[in-house]
Amino acid sequence: MTTPHPRKQRLAEFIRAIWDEGDADAADRFIAETYTIHHDPGDPWHGQTLDRAGFRDRLVKSRAAFPDQRFHTQAMFADGDSVVMTWLWSATHSGDIPGFPATGRTIRMSGATVYGFDRDDRLTGHWQITDRLGVYQQLQANLMAAE
Amino acid sequence: MTTPHPRKQRLAEFIRAIWDEGDADAADRFIAETYTIHHDPGDPWHGQTLDRAGFRDRLVKSRAAFPDQRFHTQAMFADGDSVVMTWLWSATHSGDIPGFPATGRTIRMSGATVYGFDRDDRLTGHWQITDRLGVYQQLQANLMAAE
Repeated sequence: MTTPHPRKQRLAEFIRAIWDEGDADAADRFIAETYTIHHDPGDPWHGQTLDRAGFRDRLVKSRAAFPDQRFHTQAMFADGDSVVMTWLWSATHSGDIPGFPATGRTIRMSGATVYGFDRDDRLTGHWQITDRLGVYQQLQANLMAAE
Repeated sequence: MTTPHPRKQRLAEFIRAIWDEGDADAADRFIAETYTIHHDPGDPWHGQTLDRAGFRDRLVKSRAAFPDQRFHTQAMFADGDSVVMTWLWSATHSGDIPGFPATGRTIRMSGATVYGFDRDDRLTGHWQITDRLGVYQQLQANLMAAE
């Protein structure tokens, strides 16, 4: 339908390498010198600007409870210096979260993320909404089922 | 910076007339013959396709507890037949919600919405994520403060 969009392709590569595969060393290829979490309710780094070491730390900690997580891109929209991605997500809850011990059950989530790019096509930050109530309800239900 | 984008302007007019002001009669100007809620976790009409009467019914019911609600657009992104809008929202909780009687307190929310347009620039539906956990936490805190 449309010609491939370089930044959409780059974002797809970033999601796969960084968030799906958890390749922290690849962060330097994709991330600008600093990366700002402009808006991300519930994310411990909401509002912070991270250097690359900080980004790798957030990556490792964010994936710890869900090491097999996969993003399923629904659509991408490019405008100006941004690419918006709508997504579904699924993962096995295989690491402990405060209040929610690992259950081995599948957790599903959906969200929408605006990614900013610099002139070198590196990511400068994001603005994100996730359906964290949906996640919380699944964690609660699994906890009660395990008791 | 950029030239005005007709569909972004039209979306801004839709948000103001329909969702901020609650002008149900204006729906016919903005909505296609049918309107599909493709994805909207927590919305009672998630997954449904509505005709214009159904859209007006959803509008009236959605605004009942928050009649002075206002959307504060953060950014818009146009690509293909879609415009994505990131937004903050605030409203006085002045009508009852099941389990949450009106408190007169301000509730805040953020979200991201992908709107689809047809060739006549009418809206055909949306894909949306809202931070409903943030809303739930505020409603809970206000309920406990009132007890």
